[in-house]
Amino acid sequence: MRRRKVKGADEKLLSYKDYVIKENIEEMKGKWSVHFENNNPIHVEFGTGRGKFITTLAKQNPNINYIAMEIKEEVLVKAVEKADENNLDNILFVWGNVNNILDYFDEKEIDRVYVNFCDPWPKTRWAKRRLTHTNFLNKYDKILNADGEIHFKTDNEKLFEFTLNEIASDGWALKNISLNLAESDYNENVTTEYEDKFMSQGMKIYRCEAKK
Amino acid sequence: MRRRKVKGADEKLLSYKDYVIKENIEEMKGKWSVHFENNNPIHVEFGTGRGKFITTLAKQNPNINYIAMEIKEEVLVKAVEKADENNLDNILFVWGNVNNILDYFDEKEIDRVYVNFCDPWPKTRWAKRRLTHTNFLNKYDKILNADGEIHFKTDNEKLFEFTLNEIASDGWALKNISLNLAESDYNENVTTEYEDKFMSQGMKIYRCEAKK
Ligand SMILES: C[S@@+](CC[C@H](N)C(=O)[O-])C[C@H]1O[C@@H](n2cnc3c(N)ncnc32)[C@H](O)[C@@H]1O
Ligand SMILES: C[S@@+](CC[C@H](N)C(=O)[O-])C[C@H]1O[C@@H](n2cnc3c(N)ncnc32)[C@H](O)[C@@H]1O
Repeated sequence: MRRRKVKGADEKLLSYKDYVIKENIEEMKGKWSVHFENNNPIHVEFGTGRGKFITTLAKQNPNINYIAMEIKEEVLVKAVEKADENNLDNILFVWGNVNNILDYFDEKEIDRVYVNFCDPWPKTRWAKRRLTHTNFLNKYDKILNADGEIHFKTDNEKLFEFTLNEIASDGWALKNISLNLAESDYNENVTTEYEDKFMSQGMKIYRCEAKK
Repeated sequence: MRRRKVKGADEKLLSYKDYVIKENIEEMKGKWSVHFENNNPIHVEFGTGRGKFITTLAKQNPNINYIAMEIKEEVLVKAVEKADENNLDNILFVWGNVNNILDYFDEKEIDRVYVNFCDPWPKTRWAKRRLTHTNFLNKYDKILNADGEIHFKTDNEKLFEFTLNEIASDGWALKNISLNLAESDYNENVTTEYEDKFMSQGMKIYRCEAKK
């Protein structure tokens, strides 16, 4: 499926330039706190999509800084608009590829990584593209500080199984595993756009956290 | 639900006395290898039920010793009959309560613990009765040797979620997690009686392994 490119996404992003980093992202490496003008913890979401999740968190937690990374410009625009409507100043949007995060973040610069409903890449030969493949986990490990955590959600059973096994085999400690978020005790849940869609179809949502 | 007691289970078990240990189990502590007359690894199943799983394994693996523990005499009889039909000499049946295993097994005496389709005890206040509660995991940890593993299966989503979280929070390493055994790559699976029933109803089977 080819995604229709929203006309003018590029110009739109430009008009939100205080919110958006789309060029020379590597210059931010080690300096995110400077840009936020405080030393609050930094939580990053990879593959943000339209941004409901991270803008809601940013609204709820003014003392945490949020970075939302998304590779599709026309999708990122939607996320930026949400933050702008809410006048949030503790969030930044990065038009970037998760593959390159070691160029964008310094070691231990980040306090939490969120990955929500990432593309499942169902065929075995695509496993390395999944954002929870060991190669990605190793990158997250590098940019996370000692207490840092990964928080992961998906609707995809196979991807969740894969993710649990990747995390467990890599010496992370799993915690707060939910096999059916709607029926779990976890009630701080903030949903994403994909999650709202899947839940309205009665699908199960899986969730876990991991810590080194 | 009260279970009908099979008439004469007691006498039946007695007639299989080479297979069955039903009194003074604590006298076996530290001496299971002596009883098996070899130093092969010892794998134990807790809550064996009618014994299809463990007698099949005993047939497949003559160089492993198996111990099947079950609290219900009339159920254990069925398991013993299966072993007897197959003339197995690498299996022993214990009419005992998993609560008391520290009286029955010495530290590090066991190489693997199987728990299959244990009673889910769904109410929160019953959590301590689940055979994968931390209190039980700690007991398994004591009797398992350094390379020892727990292998767990269930049809019950809530119990599986509970078990994953108990295991993960207790410093075990999880591995080979399956969220749907029928669709997994794990093809050495040996089914239990409960498993056959659940699978024929199209229910999902969950499985995991844990190692300290
Ligand atoms: C299935 S969507 C989920 C979006 C959102 N997290 C949600 O739950 O509603 C996955 C998103 O990840 C983005 N994405 C995929 N691979 C990426 C990568 N390597 N770097 C950045 N974003 C990526 C896609 O463009 C897409 O917007
Ligand atoms: C649901 S059945 C499953 C039986 C078998 N594992 C299977 O999968 O077909 C659970 C079994 O565990 C036994 N059991 C429950 N608690 C036990 C305990 N504390 N000690 C020994 N056996 C126990 C029950 O008597 C029952 O036979």
